[in-house]
Order: sequence, then structure tokens, then C-alpha cells
Amino acid sequence: MRKGEMGNNGAQEEKTSLIEGRNEVIEALRSGRTIDRLYVLDGSHDGKIETIKREAKKAGIRIDFIDRKRLDTMSLTGNHQGVVAKAAAYSYAEVDDILQRAEEKGEEPFIFVLDGIEDPHNLGAMIRTADVCGAHGVIIPKDRAVGLTATVAKASAGAINYVPVAKVTNLTRAMEELKQKGIWFAGADMDGELMYACNLRGPMGIVIGAEGKGLSRLVKEKCDYIVRIPLHGNIDSLNASVACGVLAYEVVRQRDSLSK
Amino acid sequence: MRKGEMGNNGAQEEKTSLIEGRNEVIEALRSGRTIDRLYVLDGSHDGKIETIKREAKKAGIRIDFIDRKRLDTMSLTGNHQGVVAKAAAYSYAEVDDILQRAEEKGEEPFIFVLDGIEDPHNLGAMIRTADVCGAHGVIIPKDRAVGLTATVAKASAGAINYVPVAKVTNLTRAMEELKQKGIWFAGADMDGELMYACNLRGPMGIVIGAEGKGLSRLVKEKCDYIVRIPLHGNIDSLNASVACGVLAYEVVRQRDSLSK
Repeated sequence: MRKGEMGNNGAQEEKTSLIEGRNEVIEALRSGRTIDRLYVLDGSHDGKIETIKREAKKAGIRIDFIDRKRLDTMSLTGNHQGVVAKAAAYSYAEVDDILQRAEEKGEEPFIFVLDGIEDPHNLGAMIRTADVCGAHGVIIPKDRAVGLTATVAKASAGAINYVPVAKVTNLTRAMEELKQKGIWFAGADMDGELMYACNLRGPMGIVIGAEGKGLSRLVKEKCDYIVRIPLHGNIDSLNASVACGVLAYEVVRQRDSLSK
Repeated sequence: MRKGEMGNNGAQEEKTSLIEGRNEVIEALRSGRTIDRLYVLDGSHDGKIETIKREAKKAGIRIDFIDRKRLDTMSLTGNHQGVVAKAAAYSYAEVDDILQRAEEKGEEPFIFVLDGIEDPHNLGAMIRTADVCGAHGVIIPKDRAVGLTATVAKASAGAINYVPVAKVTNLTRAMEELKQKGIWFAGADMDGELMYACNLRGPMGIVIGAEGKGLSRLVKEKCDYIVRIPLHGNIDSLNASVACGVLAYEVVRQRDSLSK
């Protein structure tokens, strides 16, 4: 399939990326991410800032204390909470890194495949969900989808430092290759089988469509089964990151066999 | 409890509200909401715009065709997709309206209690989830929380037209009154019992804390039990609207008894 030149990732792939906000910077420091520069609002002394100072000292990172105006100018999200760190740009993982992570943990692979998410808050929330629910990684397409930007990093609440995110040119080809390695794919769509009735155990990828569009035809065809979240209202779909969370936790419930 | 004057709702309670975006306007028209004025981008002819024209004609609402510049000026969300409707401001329901809705449907009450959500995208996504999962209404506090704004309405994907949202001065008092009517409250917190191990059937309110803060102490004390979403990662919580969706669907699963 020939892809157009309309992907919006090119401009967003800076060489450095900003990490903004207290929890985000703490997560970056604790995860061992390389921080090039660390800027803190002059005169800040509350608990989280003290934690940042301590962690930075431990990691041998110098802090520049600067005034609010300079921080505001630097900030891309408009919500720096008195702390901005400059780090090497968020780097993408390979699909194999995700499989290797599962193997190292001695777990069957659990992957999120996100088919064209455009809203950085949604992508960030989904990466956060991937970490919290114990998924091994996230696969996103190169074109027509948001990449790893500062807003995504912030919305991920630091999860971006832990969860490998692979960006692939061709989502269906990546799925095909993973199927040959024994991964099953469950796509979320309203015309599918009720998710509780599907066996979501084993090596598994869940596939979530774009906001307002759902799964694209080619990606849907690659899914081994289509699963449906029960709908009891007037609106016919959940927010993409909520749908991703609900389906991911149905996988977790079945895997953990914790159901009553 | 004395409340400060810091609530940010006052300024947001306009007499009219804007509905922006194609799906949102279609939902508003279909739900029978009173639209005072309807503006459509001159020259638009695609499927959804045609649907809007048809629904507007059915409801006897005149359409003004205007240029993009005027629409851009009018838009509050910056994402009008060629359609803006002016309607009476989103009105709040009473807590009793929520109970009545459950009674009319012959269902046991299922309520979302949102303890101080500040992000309008999260509140909108949660109202959307309430509709989709079949909850009967949402209760939010008057102070220190976002109210029903245009951004919330848009993020709700039209669900705001279907789900009654009650705004109360004192959240714990509202919970106390509902408890006397037989409602049980399950608050989401990481130190609670695993959600799969709790009986979430029967008349039920789920209680979700604010972004980054979790449940406030007084609200937590009013909960009948505290439930935990399993955590398998490095980050210790989900995005608030994702957590709300995951817990809401555990209630749905138990209610529907669809589990394998």
C-alpha cells in the first residue's frame, strides 16, 4: 500500500524533548532516563521539588534555578508546575523489543495496537494504561497518527519512560508478522462478539481504532476476532482511551483468572 | 463544611451554550434538545451535514449558512467541523431525577460520583461512559471541579444530552442521603480490595477521585467499600476517565452476569 506524505510526525520528531511537570520529571529521573538539563522554579521548596532535587543529585544532574517567565517561555504544554527537563527525544522501540520484554518477564505477550490515534491526550492515556495493566508495549502507525510528543509524554504520566512504543510503516504487515509468531489479535468494534464471551488469554494484541473512525478495514481484516464492549446507552462508542482501558482490563481479568 | 469562593463554575455558567462539531449537533438534534440558532459552513454538502439539514428541517430549526471566518470566531473549542448550534445552557439535573430515571427503566440505580474532576476532557469522557454503560446519572460537586462547559459537552460526544448531571454543594451529604435510600458506594483507590472480589451488584454508586489527588478523605470515609483496579506496572494509577470506565464496566459485567 502506498502511503501519502500527510503523516504529521515529521515535524514533531525533535532531537530533544521536554519533560514537564513534577510527577513526569520524577518518573523520568527514577526510570533512569538521560536528562540533559533540568530547570526548576527559583524558590520552590515543596515535597515533590525536594524529591526532584534529591533524585537529580543522585543521578549527578545539575539543576538550573530560573524564574517563572523563563519556564513559561520554555514550556510546550503550558503546565510545567515549576519543573522542566530537557532529555534526548523519546525514542521508538522495535516490535521485537516488545516481545523480548514479555519473554524477560516470563509472560505471554500482551500488546496494544493503536490504529491511527490522533489525540495526544488519548495516546498518552493509552500508554499509561499499557504500563498500569502490565502490557509489554504499544504499536502505532507512522502515518496519520500522533507520535511521541511532549503532550503525549505528559498525558502518559511518565509511563512513556517504561513502555516501549514501536512505530511501524505498515500496521497490517506488523500484525501479520506477529501472527506468525503466535500472537492473536482482538479488535474492538461494535459489531463484534461480546468481549466476555471471547477467550482473551494467551499471547494477545488488542487493536483499538481511531477516534470517531474505528478500525480501518484492512486492520480489521487482520484481526483474529472482533470483540464488542457492551453498549447500554444512546451513544454508540466510548472515548478511544476509555475503550482501550476497558478491553485491556478484560484481558487482565481473564489472564489473572480473578473473576468470581 | 464551609466552602471557599474558589469554584470555577460561576464564570462558565452562561445562559446559552454552544454545541460544536457534526456528531455533537446531530446528537443534540436527535435528543430533542432546543436549538436556538444553527450555523453551517456555506457550501458544505457531505453526508453528516446533509443529516443535520434533514434533522433541522424535521425540528423546524432554521439554518444560517455562514463563512469559515465567522464560524471560527464563534467557536470556543476550535474544532467546529463546519457546524455550530446555539442552545439553552446545559442545565443540571437534581439527584432525584437520576433515581427517577432508574425507576422508569425498572433498573437498580447506577450512579457515577465524581470527586473534583478538573479536566473538561475527562469529565466529558466520563459522561460519555455513563451513557454508554447504562448508568443513570452523574453527580459532581459545585466547587473545585469543572462544570458543564462547551468543551465538556464536545468531549462527551453528545452524551450530555442524555445523561442527567447533578451538581451538589456538598458531595458527602448527597452520598449520605443516597445511602439512606439504599445506594451503596464503591470508591476507587489503590489501597482497596480487588474489584473482582467485591460484590458490585445492586443499587450502586461508583466514586472516582480527582486527577492526581484521588478521593478526598471525607468522601472516602463515606464509601461503603474501597475497590482497587489491579496494578501491574510502574505508574500507580490510570487516567481518571480510564479508571472510571474500567470500574464502571466491572459493575456492568457483574450486573449483566455475563462473565464466563
